[in-house]
Amino acid sequence: MYVVGIDVGGQTSKIGVVDARGTVLAQTVIRTDNHDVVDLFIAELAEAVKKVIKEADVEGKVRGIGVGAPNGNYYTGTIENAPNLSWGHNRVEFAKLLSEAMGGMPVALTNDANAAAVGEMTYGAARGMKNFIMITLGSGVGSGIVINGEVVYGHDGFAGELGHTAAVRNNGRACGCGKTGCLETYASATGVARTAREWLELSDEPSVLRNLDSIASKDVFDAAKDGDKLALKIFEFTGKILGRSFADFVAFSAPEAIVLFGGLARAKEFLNDPIEEAMNANLLPMWKNKVKVIYSQLKESDAAILGASALAWEL
Amino acid sequence: MYVVGIDVGGQTSKIGVVDARGTVLAQTVIRTDNHDVVDLFIAELAEAVKKVIKEADVEGKVRGIGVGAPNGNYYTGTIENAPNLSWGHNRVEFAKLLSEAMGGMPVALTNDANAAAVGEMTYGAARGMKNFIMITLGSGVGSGIVINGEVVYGHDGFAGELGHTAAVRNNGRACGCGKTGCLETYASATGVARTAREWLELSDEPSVLRNLDSIASKDVFDAAKDGDKLALKIFEFTGKILGRSFADFVAFSAPEAIVLFGGLARAKEFLNDPIEEAMNANLLPMWKNKVKVIYSQLKESDAAILGASALAWEL
Repeated sequence: MYVVGIDVGGQTSKIGVVDARGTVLAQTVIRTDNHDVVDLFIAELAEAVKKVIKEADVEGKVRGIGVGAPNGNYYTGTIENAPNLSWGHNRVEFAKLLSEAMGGMPVALTNDANAAAVGEMTYGAARGMKNFIMITLGSGVGSGIVINGEVVYGHDGFAGELGHTAAVRNNGRACGCGKTGCLETYASATGVARTAREWLELSDEPSVLRNLDSIASKDVFDAAKDGDKLALKIFEFTGKILGRSFADFVAFSAPEAIVLFGGLARAKEFLNDPIEEAMNANLLPMWKNKVKVIYSQLKESDAAILGASALAWEL
Repeated sequence: MYVVGIDVGGQTSKIGVVDARGTVLAQTVIRTDNHDVVDLFIAELAEAVKKVIKEADVEGKVRGIGVGAPNGNYYTGTIENAPNLSWGHNRVEFAKLLSEAMGGMPVALTNDANAAAVGEMTYGAARGMKNFIMITLGSGVGSGIVINGEVVYGHDGFAGELGHTAAVRNNGRACGCGKTGCLETYASATGVARTAREWLELSDEPSVLRNLDSIASKDVFDAAKDGDKLALKIFEFTGKILGRSFADFVAFSAPEAIVLFGGLARAKEFLNDPIEEAMNANLLPMWKNKVKVIYSQLKESDAAILGASALAWEL
């Protein structure tokens, strides 16, 4: 049997057919933002799904479809108040609509970080683990929490918003969610760029970053690789913020590992030591040096599809 | 069928026989700290258990024994490094020893806060809830996390140490665990007394508390009831610390409710408003005013036995 994985992003959506070993047999990409009305997007998406199923030559052998989408709710199969989806500002019965358009094929849906956690557990670095926390370090900070081999959805389906726990309680940075001091305002790609801009303004320390018109986290990464001291300090600071938050997450669910994924996780060489140091400094003695920090093993180009597809095995 | 609940405390241990509706049919208390060797304590405990079973007239109808104990590990049935138990400084195979002493009767063991959570779910305020967080406000802050109707034990059996998450990240109070700024250094009975002593020293504000030689949380409670302004402010501060930590806990597991239990929870009239205000101010919009803060409904004298006994129904 085979499954289909769909990763719905703000601009594009990726669709792939996946086998039980995590091989993507065929894939395609369509635009997400061509439509303001969800039905039109669903119609296009269903066509694309049928096309890749045909291309992979597995018609009649597909068990179901897994979808990872911003603000996706596993319980209800809905996408709710997703500011980055042109057709997702209200409440969209996504799983139901897609299933109907696919002639009743079962569809499971969750948010992107939860999908990533299922993907990592099914095909990746967390294979065999029953208790871990997936942290996605992208433009924001997402999380998928696995306890006893199952993703935690909570009472309402929206559990696992660790990017919006308090990293800084007083005078913290403003977050898009309306709060201040959220972890993602410091420890995301956006957060790294914010730290760079803030520190450049507050100090006179020399840095190649001063020569840039605008700064993205990639620039800070490149500068760090060239040995730029300010850039290195920015990653040290970011790792420290992450590590001490991780210590609090461990106190909650006592995971075997924290699994990092996403663009910023590529800065492992600069982030890992400060993360582990700050985490262990803030853990209860019984957990010190016992909780692993590991990195996604999924091929980045396939990871989003794989994560979403893994959901469909549980259907 | 019936179950036996045992609450192991540092000084005394309570033992009771409980029916399926949560009625304690017979109970007794023995000293915990009479022995340095666990075998001698177990022998006495087993005698006491047999006595209450006989007294309740349910011989041959007892399904099993549930034990709540400091540092109790559900997976292994052991008590590990419990500083407050005279015989518990190392690793004690408590469940196995007690089961043997009881002729093979099954024994389940967990820590006191987890036992309280199971008790509240089985007989108390959380009946029917599948997702809630139990917070015990005693001399420390304990927690029992329930997700999908099951207590979270984590990878190693020690999950749910929310009293040791960071309430204050910089310059926080020293905690018995070796860290600083832990929630329990502020929001426990001990924490309330510490706040009182700190504030009395740092300000000249008049307060009846100045007349006391030593201050316990009960004194602050009594002073607040008499309208003492400093005492009222202490509870406001304590509630605020709790509420903003609760917001982070909600972001983790999206519970239906936070359930409060323990001596300090009796100060509900002073704590509840600041807790709810700070929690809602720090929640993501989708959770604002949706997560309940409720208080244990178990009779306090029976609660510890009930919580422990509830574990045994799952055997």
